[in-house]
Amino acid sequence: MATRLRAVVLLSGGLDSATTLAIARRTGFECYALSFDYGQRHRVELEAARRVAAALEVARHEILTFDLRQFGGSALTADIAVPKDRPGSEIAHGIPVTYVPARNTIFLSFALAWAETLGSTDIYIGVNVLDSSGYPDCRPEYIEAFERMANLATKAGVEGQPLTIHTPLIRMSKAEIVEAAMEAGVPLDLTWSCYEPRPDGAACGRCDSCQLRRRGFTEAGFVDPLRYA
Amino acid sequence: MATRLRAVVLLSGGLDSATTLAIARRTGFECYALSFDYGQRHRVELEAARRVAAALEVARHEILTFDLRQFGGSALTADIAVPKDRPGSEIAHGIPVTYVPARNTIFLSFALAWAETLGSTDIYIGVNVLDSSGYPDCRPEYIEAFERMANLATKAGVEGQPLTIHTPLIRMSKAEIVEAAMEAGVPLDLTWSCYEPRPDGAACGRCDSCQLRRRGFTEAGFVDPLRYA
Repeated sequence: MATRLRAVVLLSGGLDSATTLAIARRTGFECYALSFDYGQRHRVELEAARRVAAALEVARHEILTFDLRQFGGSALTADIAVPKDRPGSEIAHGIPVTYVPARNTIFLSFALAWAETLGSTDIYIGVNVLDSSGYPDCRPEYIEAFERMANLATKAGVEGQPLTIHTPLIRMSKAEIVEAAMEAGVPLDLTWSCYEPRPDGAACGRCDSCQLRRRGFTEAGFVDPLRYA
Repeated sequence: MATRLRAVVLLSGGLDSATTLAIARRTGFECYALSFDYGQRHRVELEAARRVAAALEVARHEILTFDLRQFGGSALTADIAVPKDRPGSEIAHGIPVTYVPARNTIFLSFALAWAETLGSTDIYIGVNVLDSSGYPDCRPEYIEAFERMANLATKAGVEGQPLTIHTPLIRMSKAEIVEAAMEAGVPLDLTWSCYEPRPDGAACGRCDSCQLRRRGFTEAGFVDPLRYA
């Protein structure tokens, strides 16, 4: 029996990372999902990550814990208000306070460590440059630079098993991501995107992440199964 | 009063990182020391890091906790024997089982996050390519690639405040590092280098790290204040 190739997939529990996991799985990889409990306010996303990982039958799901609140500096980890009701034109430009310094670099570094331990040369991350919130660590030039660095950092890279960072969503619009999610069989009702969930468990509907998601569903012509406040 | 520039300094508590901290301090930086409790066997090094940070009067010392044992794959974090009594020629060639996948990449990523939060554009790391254990993530080409990636990853980098990763020891021999440590006033008796400390608190004297350190002191003509088994 042929051994399936392994991939490490970063899984936040949101629409984008769940779609990325479904795509990696459909490509034929045995998937190892990696999530982080890093002190984020919207820790409810970890429950979503668990449900999505189980529904998409990953080989293993690890949740790594550390506390980025030791550094502070972001609305997602410190006592800074999450922006609400920003117009789309504003979301698309500039780096907002929800930016978490070096977050994707930290996440990808752990994925790199796990990939090398698993003998895997494939990492998937659901970054997106178009309908994103203007985070610098979602751009193609950043991903390329990380891949280059990673291949100088590791035993596998040095010994001629180069690593590839797959970003299947990077140039998609949010509407295209919703379509890709439907096509790949993502359990959309299990995903979570809101930065500031309500006490009753509803998504706020007003943070950048909710706004981008809702617009994506509307433009794709699908109904978002999430419950909004 | 002029504000002193801030630097984040990775501090394991060993000879190399303590020397690096002393050099950063002498250069005039206000130093923010960063250590990691990552599931390493030789966690005693964190006590050394605390003592060194206090002795060298850092502005702040953070110890970030996560568990690399969730991934396994190294003699420093999994149930694999730490090699002993390897001849120097063997230590100098090949990547040993004490290699921790992507460790410096993870450490530098957290340093990057903290630097950005502090408004710092300077990170110090005590990597060394000559008398090292053959780890790929100690080489100059790796450090350059990380720096390049970092400047694409962060808000500061994108907004024109490029980050520099300082590696003052990178081309020094271990003897030269011991000399630099003496010159910079490193409290050598407070540092710790052994991978497998004895129950009575002595350094084993036989792991790669002990061997490299002892040879450095001998070649520099100084007495190592550490107690060996």
